[in-house]
Amino acid sequence: MGVREEANERRRNDILDAAERIVAEKGIGHLNIRDVARASGCSVGTIYTHFADLDGLALHVNARTLARLAAALDDVERHDQGGDIAGQLCAMAGAYMDFAAGNYHVWSALFEHRMPQPLPEWHREDHFRLFRRIAGKLRTLHPNLPDDEAFLRARTLYAAIHGIVSLGMADRLGRLPAETLKAEIRRIMPNLLS
Amino acid sequence: MGVREEANERRRNDILDAAERIVAEKGIGHLNIRDVARASGCSVGTIYTHFADLDGLALHVNARTLARLAAALDDVERHDQGGDIAGQLCAMAGAYMDFAAGNYHVWSALFEHRMPQPLPEWHREDHFRLFRRIAGKLRTLHPNLPDDEAFLRARTLYAAIHGIVSLGMADRLGRLPAETLKAEIRRIMPNLLS
Repeated sequence: MGVREEANERRRNDILDAAERIVAEKGIGHLNIRDVARASGCSVGTIYTHFADLDGLALHVNARTLARLAAALDDVERHDQGGDIAGQLCAMAGAYMDFAAGNYHVWSALFEHRMPQPLPEWHREDHFRLFRRIAGKLRTLHPNLPDDEAFLRARTLYAAIHGIVSLGMADRLGRLPAETLKAEIRRIMPNLLS
Repeated sequence: MGVREEANERRRNDILDAAERIVAEKGIGHLNIRDVARASGCSVGTIYTHFADLDGLALHVNARTLARLAAALDDVERHDQGGDIAGQLCAMAGAYMDFAAGNYHVWSALFEHRMPQPLPEWHREDHFRLFRRIAGKLRTLHPNLPDDEAFLRARTLYAAIHGIVSLGMADRLGRLPAETLKAEIRRIMPNLLS
């Protein structure tokens, strides 16, 4: 990489860092180009040379979040290799909840209604990679499951756990204590795998 | 009710009707007092004599939506009295999906992140009433379940189905065909009840 490319890359990262901090602290609804410019020390014009618009910037923040979520699930897999597949999936569901609790605003941003519809292919793939990982485990549990059926079930499983975590942590309905929510996930996971 | 109260009540309803139409057509993100004033033929000032602010107006639109959702579930119960409880709950989950599909924007508005946190007690009760109905059915299936445990499980069940419907219908991940989604709900429901 030339000096110029490196400087460009660094600036792009600075912009993303600033945007990520704003989303993490205040939520995606508070993300705007002007504040990102101020926080990153870049001009508004520079930001638009790196990202098409606010939605594009938000998508790249979300891509980082999904990468961190995937890494958190990797950790679980690495530390839980002795256990059975069902136990591993259960631990991953717990890790999903921990991630959501520990990264509430950036995690919420993944599912915000104002995201562009549909997502661009590259970012949709970030989600689908996660579903395929879960599908692989489901196929270990149910070896006769065809690929597309396993993918569909993985999506359903992910969506169910996501719904439980998402409504359980929302202040609007009275946030459930983390331990209660985790116990519910532990209770329901084996049922979701049969 | 006096003539004046009646006129007041009628105006309040006109305002709510207009707000509901805007949310139904464009989504809650497009709700603003100025457009509601224009569509209802009321002045901005009149709207503020009936509703504290935009959030208050949105909450009352949501309360109407939840009342219609409850009525849709009532219908299922009335038409499915012969069936067993598990079948009835399964039919209710299907009705939930149909309601979401047929009322996408007003249904989405129920779970929007920008709603006031926490919800006022009266509106939270609208949700909790729904959970208690499901809890009652779960107690028929599991007579030894304590009340609070049944309520928690009802909330988990609702949240799981909500997650499946919500991620399944979101354009961003590629909307699943309605029949696929319904088949997944039918497949998973019995597991969620054990």
